Amino acid sequence: MTIAADLARFALSQAPASEAASRFTELSLFDWATAGLAGRDEPVSRAARAMALGEGATGGSTVIGGGKVHPRAAALANGAISHALDYDDTHFLHIGHPSVVVMSAALAIAEVEGSRGADFLAALTRGLELACRVGDWLGRSHYEAGFHQTGTAGAFGATAAAGRILGLDEAAMTSALGLATTRAAGLKSQFGTMAKPLNAGFAAEVGVTCALLARYGVVSNPEAFEDAQGFGATHAGSDRRQAFDGIGRDWVFPEVSYKYHACCHGLHAMLECLAEIKAGGVAPEAVERIIITTNPRWFAVCNKPEPTTGLEAKFSYRMTAAMALHGVDTADLGVYDEATCRRADLVALRDKVVVEGDAALADTASQVVADLKDGTRRSASHDLAATPDPARTALRLKAKSATLLGVAQSEALWQAVSTLNQDAVGLAGLAEQLEASR
Amino acid sequence: MTIAADLARFALSQAPASEAASRFTELSLFDWATAGLAGRDEPVSRAARAMALGEGATGGSTVIGGGKVHPRAAALANGAISHALDYDDTHFLHIGHPSVVVMSAALAIAEVEGSRGADFLAALTRGLELACRVGDWLGRSHYEAGFHQTGTAGAFGATAAAGRILGLDEAAMTSALGLATTRAAGLKSQFGTMAKPLNAGFAAEVGVTCALLARYGVVSNPEAFEDAQGFGATHAGSDRRQAFDGIGRDWVFPEVSYKYHACCHGLHAMLECLAEIKAGGVAPEAVERIIITTNPRWFAVCNKPEPTTGLEAKFSYRMTAAMALHGVDTADLGVYDEATCRRADLVALRDKVVVEGDAALADTASQVVADLKDGTRRSASHDLAATPDPARTALRLKAKSATLLGVAQSEALWQAVSTLNQDAVGLAGLAEQLEASR
Repeated sequence: MTIAADLARFALSQAPASEAASRFTELSLFDWATAGLAGRDEPVSRAARAMALGEGATGGSTVIGGGKVHPRAAALANGAISHALDYDDTHFLHIGHPSVVVMSAALAIAEVEGSRGADFLAALTRGLELACRVGDWLGRSHYEAGFHQTGTAGAFGATAAAGRILGLDEAAMTSALGLATTRAAGLKSQFGTMAKPLNAGFAAEVGVTCALLARYGVVSNPEAFEDAQGFGATHAGSDRRQAFDGIGRDWVFPEVSYKYHACCHGLHAMLECLAEIKAGGVAPEAVERIIITTNPRWFAVCNKPEPTTGLEAKFSYRMTAAMALHGVDTADLGVYDEATCRRADLVALRDKVVVEGDAALADTASQVVADLKDGTRRSASHDLAATPDPARTALRLKAKSATLLGVAQSEALWQAVSTLNQDAVGLAGLAEQLEASR
Repeated sequence: MTIAADLARFALSQAPASEAASRFTELSLFDWATAGLAGRDEPVSRAARAMALGEGATGGSTVIGGGKVHPRAAALANGAISHALDYDDTHFLHIGHPSVVVMSAALAIAEVEGSRGADFLAALTRGLELACRVGDWLGRSHYEAGFHQTGTAGAFGATAAAGRILGLDEAAMTSALGLATTRAAGLKSQFGTMAKPLNAGFAAEVGVTCALLARYGVVSNPEAFEDAQGFGATHAGSDRRQAFDGIGRDWVFPEVSYKYHACCHGLHAMLECLAEIKAGGVAPEAVERIIITTNPRWFAVCNKPEPTTGLEAKFSYRMTAAMALHGVDTADLGVYDEATCRRADLVALRDKVVVEGDAALADTASQVVADLKDGTRRSASHDLAATPDPARTALRLKAKSATLLGVAQSEALWQAVSTLNQDAVGLAGLAEQLEASR
């Protein structure tokens, strides 16, 4: 069996996914919709939506923020819109952001196919898992060479989810995945530009395109993953075949990680530590000194010692630590501004924060020690790579969504997502939430 | 200046192109349209057209074979349709097929912009030249690594042509080209499948997409060609900066090569030699022996000694040599069949043909010696890489078109193309020809 054929069989299997995989699919769907709605008015979102609507506003696929277009256009637009704030989920084994790609593709096709919510969710679960496995197969070598797994590995997950919803048979699904090998792309050299979120949109559109072409009869080279000049070899893949071991039995997607803070990902483990210390009853005025330990590779990324702008604050251990202990909601996009950087109590606490490096620490981990004026010490450590508890994750994602969208909209969105799996529920409720303007 | 900024300036320059570049652009446009109309009913053409029409048949861009759709869909479909027969032009410095990509993108945008024919042609000339230069910059290393310049370098030419027609300014054109670096793709491991012509369609669509997004305000990394992890470094590029030397002053596009025979490209130089020998008055019955000399790398590709099927005949020096000397029109797709392989007079001549290898010969060249029964010898040699004479090229392309489309349609198409440059002529006449059903 070729890799494409193996993956096609997995993508189409009617066996149930693990409970965790299904549960985290729903949580990621809610978080994806939240990130998309929160980012719908970003410049890249406006550009992508304008292009989609310019292709004829008479289709059946919803664009986040308003409009119905043909599925490929919706997939492209929604992938970019939902990744515009970089506030969507992350998967460290995938080395990227699986949901923005897979969900944008799957929803666009599911709407025009009139899918049941349950079938849409099943396609998401398989597409997300496949994207993570392919990302792991491409591996660290692929990422270090300059490729962006969100764009590359994501395209295969998008193809699988879209193809499953279209009802492709195994041969056609194999062709669709093979076709995606000659189409998937995405470079990290675009990080920091609008092309970064567009990489997600492009990958979502690749998935829809390859699935549709396979349905219309296109046949491709099924060996194009492992061919001597296939996708892996031409794209610095690590060819870790064990990345596919146990696929369909073991599920890696539940290792997904969520962003609860509207700032650089390098700060998140530290902010989790501070939330724990704050929850233990430590007030800002009780603090003598705070020592943050992190992997030193982050120093070049997010260690602005005395930020003066909102953007700088998003890349500052010291500033965001002070904000967190003072109860500023770091999930809120609006709190990162010049006024916050100037606030006297925040600046005073910021100046008590020391940042230290420890190369032995995983880059997903942080340790925080707070020395208090009473001579006692509190400490906490956190690793973002730890598998989260779904019930606690749900509460936190709801809080994040309420901060970003307001309570009413976030609750309506939660309702739309959490009822998708019930009998006879289609996608109209979810689509209605995504179309809503602010 | 970055490469993207340099190329943007070239793409938008109002300076006239060389006479040869303009002339060969028109010839390639005629040949592109011929190849597209001849291939419109191939399976991959039907699939790509069905997907395009499925996205809403109310757009302004013509699909070859019928229908009007939105520009990105037309670009994708026409790129695949016009490359379906692999009968379009080739450029050896580009290492690929520039017209199928650049023309499909440019026409789709020019139609909805209501462009004048002259402006459309100027955009083609610059897009084609740019595609050739980028193909040369990526170089042999890129091709040998497994990438298909038609898909990769072609996308940049398509972006330039589409962006010029859209009226982008230099900054926006630079962003459009930068955006194409994170989107361009195409693998040779798909050769022999429907994904090969689709690579051309995908690249055409990439061009339209990137140009449109730049017009809607998307900004990308302008260093993404030469960045340490830019397109060249991540895609095994040779980084031959001299590939861009003299751009705008010297034109490489006129080195373009056309296919006059509906068979493997490895046979074409030999068939040109035989046409010369036949034109010198040599009749098949006068021949004692024919010796063909070719680069031995072709032996594994197109040296079927005794073909029995049409497909085998397309890969046979001996069979096509016999056909050519007997006056069978090797431009005609229909002559490659089992009946031809069985024809007694052809088989008798075929068995007098000897194929020899000479590694010193360019792979674009062949030599043919005909020993005649009267003891005399005729010989000819041909190199496809030689720059052709435009007037002679026009005659041959008209003959090819007449063979493929019939005299009436080919003359109407010639008329539509050759009047494009006249005042006040738009694209309706060309579009009408492309829409025509057989």
